[in-house]
This record gives sequence, C-alpha cells and structure tokens, in this order.
Amino acid sequence: MNLKKIAGFAAAEEIQDGQIIGLGTGSTTHYFIEKVGMRMKEEGMDVMGIPTSYQSFLLAKEWKIPVTTLEEHDVDIAVDGADEIDPNFNLIKGGGAAHTLEKIVDYSAEKLIIIADDSKIVNKLGKFPVPLEIISESRKPVFSALEDMGADPKIRMAQYKDGPVISDNGNFIVDADFREIDNPIQLEKDLNSIPGVVENGIFSQMVDQVILGTFDGVKVLK
Amino acid sequence: MNLKKIAGFAAAEEIQDGQIIGLGTGSTTHYFIEKVGMRMKEEGMDVMGIPTSYQSFLLAKEWKIPVTTLEEHDVDIAVDGADEIDPNFNLIKGGGAAHTLEKIVDYSAEKLIIIADDSKIVNKLGKFPVPLEIISESRKPVFSALEDMGADPKIRMAQYKDGPVISDNGNFIVDADFREIDNPIQLEKDLNSIPGVVENGIFSQMVDQVILGTFDGVKVLK
Repeated sequence: MNLKKIAGFAAAEEIQDGQIIGLGTGSTTHYFIEKVGMRMKEEGMDVMGIPTSYQSFLLAKEWKIPVTTLEEHDVDIAVDGADEIDPNFNLIKGGGAAHTLEKIVDYSAEKLIIIADDSKIVNKLGKFPVPLEIISESRKPVFSALEDMGADPKIRMAQYKDGPVISDNGNFIVDADFREIDNPIQLEKDLNSIPGVVENGIFSQMVDQVILGTFDGVKVLK
Repeated sequence: MNLKKIAGFAAAEEIQDGQIIGLGTGSTTHYFIEKVGMRMKEEGMDVMGIPTSYQSFLLAKEWKIPVTTLEEHDVDIAVDGADEIDPNFNLIKGGGAAHTLEKIVDYSAEKLIIIADDSKIVNKLGKFPVPLEIISESRKPVFSALEDMGADPKIRMAQYKDGPVISDNGNFIVDADFREIDNPIQLEKDLNSIPGVVENGIFSQMVDQVILGTFDGVKVLK
C-alpha cells in the first residue's frame, strides 16, 4: 500500500469546484496534485493552483492545472505535506527545501490541510532536524546562534550539483538538529529572530486538519 | 559643516591597528570608510573590512581596504549608520535597503558603533517607515499582516531602473509606516514572524555607542 497516495488522493476529494488551492511541495502532495488534475479532466472540475515551489509549479503544468498568484487570488484551501506532526498539529517542514514559500502560501490559506503517511506523527517534534533557509553570508553567525540554542546545525549538501543545496530563492538550507523541541511556538519565533535566517521549518498553530494514510485506510484528524 | 563627515571621521579614529571592521552602508559610513582608508595610507594602519553591501564593498576596494568575510574572521568592531535612534539606542535602519546584511554583520560584532548627524535622534521610533526585505511572492499577505498591525506599507520603487528596488539579495523592499512605535523590541520580533519577511529594519538592543555629528562638534553617547 502506498500510504502517501492514500492521503494525497483523499485530500483531493475535499476540493470543491471553483476553489483556489495552495499546492504544497513533496512526495505526498505530488499525489494530491495528480488527483486534482485527474478530477479536472474527468469531472470537469474548475480550480486554480498557487504553487509553493518550482516542483509544484511544474507538476501543476503537467496536469494542466491553471496557476495563479497570491496577488490575483486569495487561497481557499492549501494542501501540504510535513516531515513531523505533533499532537497539537505543530509541524516540521522543509525536507524539500521549499518551506519559505510553503509558509507564505499556507499561512495565507483560509484552510490548511496537512497530508502524510502516519509515520510522520510524533509525540514531540525534533527528531527530524529543523530546516532553515539562510542568507549565505550569515552561515557562521547563524551556526553560532543555533549552537548556543543547543542545536547541531549542518549545511544541506546537494546531489547532482556540487556543493550546497540552493533553494528556489537562491539561499542555503541549514538542517538544525535539536533532538527534542519542548516549545515549538517559541522556537519558531526565536529562529526567525536570528539575523540571516529567512524562514524556518517549524509551522506552529496553522493547521486545520490532518489527513493520514494508514494501513487501515484514511484517517482524518481535526 | 558636514555633520555626517564629522561623525564618520570621529568613528574612524576609534579604530585600532589589527582590527576586523564591519563596514556599514550609507552616506555617513561612506566618510568612515574613507577615513579608515586614509589612516591606512598615512599611518600604515593594518585592518580588514567585512562589507555589509555592494556599496561598502566597492568603497572599501576604492580605498584599498582589504576585505574578508564572516567565515574567515570575527568582527571586532562594526560601524554603521541609522535612520532613527531612540534614547535606548534602538534603531530604524534600511533607508539604503542594506539592513539584512547590516544586521548579520552588526549582530556579529564584538562592539557596534552607530554614527549619524544629530537629526537622527528621536524620542520615539516610527516617523521613519520601517524597511522590510521580503520575498517578492509574499507582497500581498505581508501587506495584509502589516495593515493588521496598524502600518501603512509601500513597495519601494527604484530610480534609474524601472519598477521596484531590488535588494543586494534579490528581494523587494517594503517601507512600513507605523507613525509611532511603542515597543520596538517586540515589533522587531513580530515583523520577522510574518511569513515572507526576510529581515526588518528595527535594530533593538544591539548598540554599544553612538557618535553624533553636531554643530558643536562630536558628541559621544554610551
């Protein structure tokens, strides 16, 4: 069973004709976008997407989903993935390095649905390192600040390209391992207060609904 | 009398042989960098600079000040300008659109000296709009968030280039007019928590010393 596909397809069934959809990034939202495209083709559903990355932009075009921008339309519903989800629906995101634009779009949405396989549910955030997008010149002072906060930071290195991963905005990605995060709401603010940090991958207090793919089928958490 | 020159030249006299200097950006730091260059030439003083912008980089090269990076050296002293300075040495900066890298370098410095003409001293920050550097796609939701906070935001438009000013990092600059800022420390954090905001121009709790150019000469505030 493909648990990501189960979650992604289920979320696509939530979409209503005429909606403006925030299109998340990653392997689970991939299935969501695919299924939205199928529904447009098969049912004549008429929607528009606002991509959160080049990945979701290209995928939307592949499935002939018209794309628009935050300038043109308000977001009715955003559907996005997550790397970790805690019991209060605080998230760690950014494994795909797209968390800056994801946060901009998800935060703008009237409703935010997170889709994931059920392995992403944790009691406490922090086993997955927190991704940060940073201005490249700030690497050293950002590392010092993160180490002072108890984290072990690493520059994310690329594959199929020499050197570091470069984000869609042209910046470095740092993965900061905190092991355990006691207060994600506070940490999200503190990380954004470090000079050089563009955005961090903690998404607190934003999620309306979680749709999980499990071996027993779809599970909806509200 | 050129009050900016008085302040800039006075700060350059504070520099000691062997120091690594954060080179601020703007019309007042212009004089500081110039005078550091003169002292190197005339006195054989040996220092290195870490620029906070292309402007200060090019000016350092013009004056033959060797430049280095935050990766190579810690910053002994940073000297930078300001658009407003309150009695607690909280600042508004970013009139020159360089506040993101300025904050990175200034925050890293062992000691931060602010230089200005005395017109920059205010009882309360906010008459000067707060500059924000933002990811371009976030313009609309950032404006909404700023308006909810009581500000009147405007995209800064360029001269000698059609359309908006683009920062050294490739982003938009927004000038957010708050008129009066009651709590700059809190506002600095709140602004950085808006998705899409890379950095804002409030610099709170960072300044060690202010050197003012006045019609009565140099005035040092600590």
